[in-house]
Amino acid sequence: MNLDQHDRAGYAIALEQARLGGGEGGVPIGSSIFENGKLISAGRNRRVQRGDPTAHGEMDALRNAGRRTSYAGATLYSTLAPCAMCAGSIILFGIRRVVVGENKNFAGELELLRSRGVEVVVVDDQQATGLMERFITENRSLWNEDIGVEES
Amino acid sequence: MNLDQHDRAGYAIALEQARLGGGEGGVPIGSSIFENGKLISAGRNRRVQRGDPTAHGEMDALRNAGRRTSYAGATLYSTLAPCAMCAGSIILFGIRRVVVGENKNFAGELELLRSRGVEVVVVDDQQATGLMERFITENRSLWNEDIGVEES
Repeated sequence: MNLDQHDRAGYAIALEQARLGGGEGGVPIGSSIFENGKLISAGRNRRVQRGDPTAHGEMDALRNAGRRTSYAGATLYSTLAPCAMCAGSIILFGIRRVVVGENKNFAGELELLRSRGVEVVVVDDQQATGLMERFITENRSLWNEDIGVEES
Repeated sequence: MNLDQHDRAGYAIALEQARLGGGEGGVPIGSSIFENGKLISAGRNRRVQRGDPTAHGEMDALRNAGRRTSYAGATLYSTLAPCAMCAGSIILFGIRRVVVGENKNFAGELELLRSRGVEVVVVDDQQATGLMERFITENRSLWNEDIGVEES
């Protein structure tokens, strides 16, 4: 795994955000953005908290980072593999490196990211995996809603 | 062009939203979402108005639509071809049809949408094209910021 000290810090903040979101009754996915080793922003999924379907963890972090003319040197951390919306945002804003906690509970769009030249590192973090696994087991409908899976 | 009366209404609302956003000093791109011929929501780019880089027109409309368990039968209207973020959101939420005003000022991710099975209709609307062309000419830096193009 190609994680340096900034990566460990960035990922730890994302995981803390995920737990915070879970404690709020939300979808427990967290994110943070670092630029050249410095924290720019953090965020968490707030679909439930704000009634906002676009408020995935990565989107919340991007929103909290505010208006920027460049994302050069930025790394985005997320506890879970980014979906099409979040991957698309990473591509749009030119974020070149993404560190993902796990892709077991949701495969996400890692290949789309890689096909657009984004470096993707998967941590395979057991804490994030366990947190998400419990959430999905206990909140299947909410999870399906969050990833656009229609229940029959 | 495969536009029915609902499409004309949906697109007219998107264009109105674009003009409204331009009048607010924002990026003049508007959107609306119809479901089986009924208006669900409308939105416009609010990067400037809200200091929110994720607030593209389509994202604003999706946010305004609130939490939903299904987007079956939905058509999304946008005055401009959706970027990677907005296209990714359309893919995530399973919106199967997108009507786009124009793709001259910004090519967008129409091929990505089509590759995921989304029907894309391009209206080639001269009003939207002219509105955007004037905006880009007069606000090049803001436009570059909105689409993640770093100025040298």
